[in-house]
Amino acid sequence: MSLAVVGSVALDTVETPAGKSTDALGGAATFFSLAASHYTQVHLVGVVGEDFPQEHIDLFSVKGIDIDGLERAPGATFRWSGRYHDDINVRDTLETQLNVFENFKPKLPDAAKNAKYLFLGNIHPALQLEVLRQARPEFVALDTMNLWIDTTRKELEEILAKIDCLIINDEEIFELTGERNIVRGARKIQDMGPSIVAPKKGEHGCLLFAGEKIFSAPAFPMAEVIDPTGAGDTFAGGFMGYIAQQDSIDFATLKKAVIHGSVLASYTCEEFGVDRIALVRPEDIETRYEAFVELAKF
Amino acid sequence: MSLAVVGSVALDTVETPAGKSTDALGGAATFFSLAASHYTQVHLVGVVGEDFPQEHIDLFSVKGIDIDGLERAPGATFRWSGRYHDDINVRDTLETQLNVFENFKPKLPDAAKNAKYLFLGNIHPALQLEVLRQARPEFVALDTMNLWIDTTRKELEEILAKIDCLIINDEEIFELTGERNIVRGARKIQDMGPSIVAPKKGEHGCLLFAGEKIFSAPAFPMAEVIDPTGAGDTFAGGFMGYIAQQDSIDFATLKKAVIHGSVLASYTCEEFGVDRIALVRPEDIETRYEAFVELAKF
Repeated sequence: MSLAVVGSVALDTVETPAGKSTDALGGAATFFSLAASHYTQVHLVGVVGEDFPQEHIDLFSVKGIDIDGLERAPGATFRWSGRYHDDINVRDTLETQLNVFENFKPKLPDAAKNAKYLFLGNIHPALQLEVLRQARPEFVALDTMNLWIDTTRKELEEILAKIDCLIINDEEIFELTGERNIVRGARKIQDMGPSIVAPKKGEHGCLLFAGEKIFSAPAFPMAEVIDPTGAGDTFAGGFMGYIAQQDSIDFATLKKAVIHGSVLASYTCEEFGVDRIALVRPEDIETRYEAFVELAKF
Repeated sequence: MSLAVVGSVALDTVETPAGKSTDALGGAATFFSLAASHYTQVHLVGVVGEDFPQEHIDLFSVKGIDIDGLERAPGATFRWSGRYHDDINVRDTLETQLNVFENFKPKLPDAAKNAKYLFLGNIHPALQLEVLRQARPEFVALDTMNLWIDTTRKELEEILAKIDCLIINDEEIFELTGERNIVRGARKIQDMGPSIVAPKKGEHGCLLFAGEKIFSAPAFPMAEVIDPTGAGDTFAGGFMGYIAQQDSIDFATLKKAVIHGSVLASYTCEEFGVDRIALVRPEDIETRYEAFVELAKF
């Protein structure tokens, strides 16, 4: 079943203890699409500027990602730059240039409107609501961030009431619910709308609350993380891609989807930007999925 | 197979967001023994003062814990008091009164000397070395803390070279190895001696490095943690108790031992001090073990 994603396509400049990458392909919708394209037809909705390199367009095409919804607007592409600490779990944003993203008004082509599965990447909740008005999905997952929780709570609560799944991290759960306890926080979020809540915990793996049920997925133990940028969006892409491929949201499928998301996210961390995730082959997914099985079984 | 433990027996005063507990039974060897007693004969080696209540002695007896090695010395029992934050993963030590523990010179009775399995609780590494000199264990696990890593590194390194398993948390791995990356940190510790390293991550579960192999155990999702004091020592008790009962350190046994440790630690967190762990029945262990199976399987 097809899957639409709305979110940023960006040029990232990233410094980590392992080195630096300048104006490299990034953005939530990029990582999401590259991951999800392993499982299903992806319709990408976003915007880039006139400076967006053709080679990135070519990469999307090679991966079979539908970019009819990727608008090219006058001006420069969204740029983000950040620096990670020696503790790779901590980063500072150095600069955000919204550029063409500032006036982004998502317009969904028919294929995206008709997609059964929809992922609303981390953009202004009012835009997420606008996308939902245009589309007819049966299952919607959403990402957000502290900025929107703090500044646009009303719109965020409005959209939370309309979606099926929220992918979120610990700190955002606290901002959103006032709960430091992740179980109570997830339950409160379920009361706000989404029956499925997936708290991402980075190097500690991921939890999944689906109705009353809970699943705990490990993180892949990595001796070196080169660049975690995009790992969360890659996770979402693997997760939603697998769900769309299986065309099921039963608990067994959701659990496997979390592992597929974790598998792909671990690859993203192995190189800067999309350097590794763009090269992942089906057999790489299979091998690492088996490694997750070994890691968790007892 | 029998199991000896050397460590503190204390009277704890603890404040958490859920309430307060005053001069309650605590100490590493206490939690360890209560957990391990479910699996095997435990020989407890420690010291208490003249003020140590008889009811606590009675509890050890009821649980079948051998306290021939629990010395009663002139003076007061070791006292610790601490306060947990609203974020229950953070605590401040308010007061430590070493009392009789200050001059503790462990003397192992024959049964403890002859135990095949030995746990060296978190005491001065010179004392841990002294215990090791007296005993003839075939498998030794050890706990330590930042204080010893910072102030007695030479003795700590000496004992690390002689043991089989180190149970440690993230922050201590960093102090000991300079590594924020838990995989690299664990590998460095393995190079220092113990072939098995078990990094405890509290609410994020526990990892197990055994030779080249890695296992990731989830934490039991708890909507309320009443008092996490002693959870780490309870974990160690369940872990070592199961290993001693099975009389095996193959990887499959070690993984199940991590889950048993996690099961018992989760019970400890449900009430103040030993209030819950002292009441755990075999069927409670079984039920929660099954919950861990459900939580982790995919």
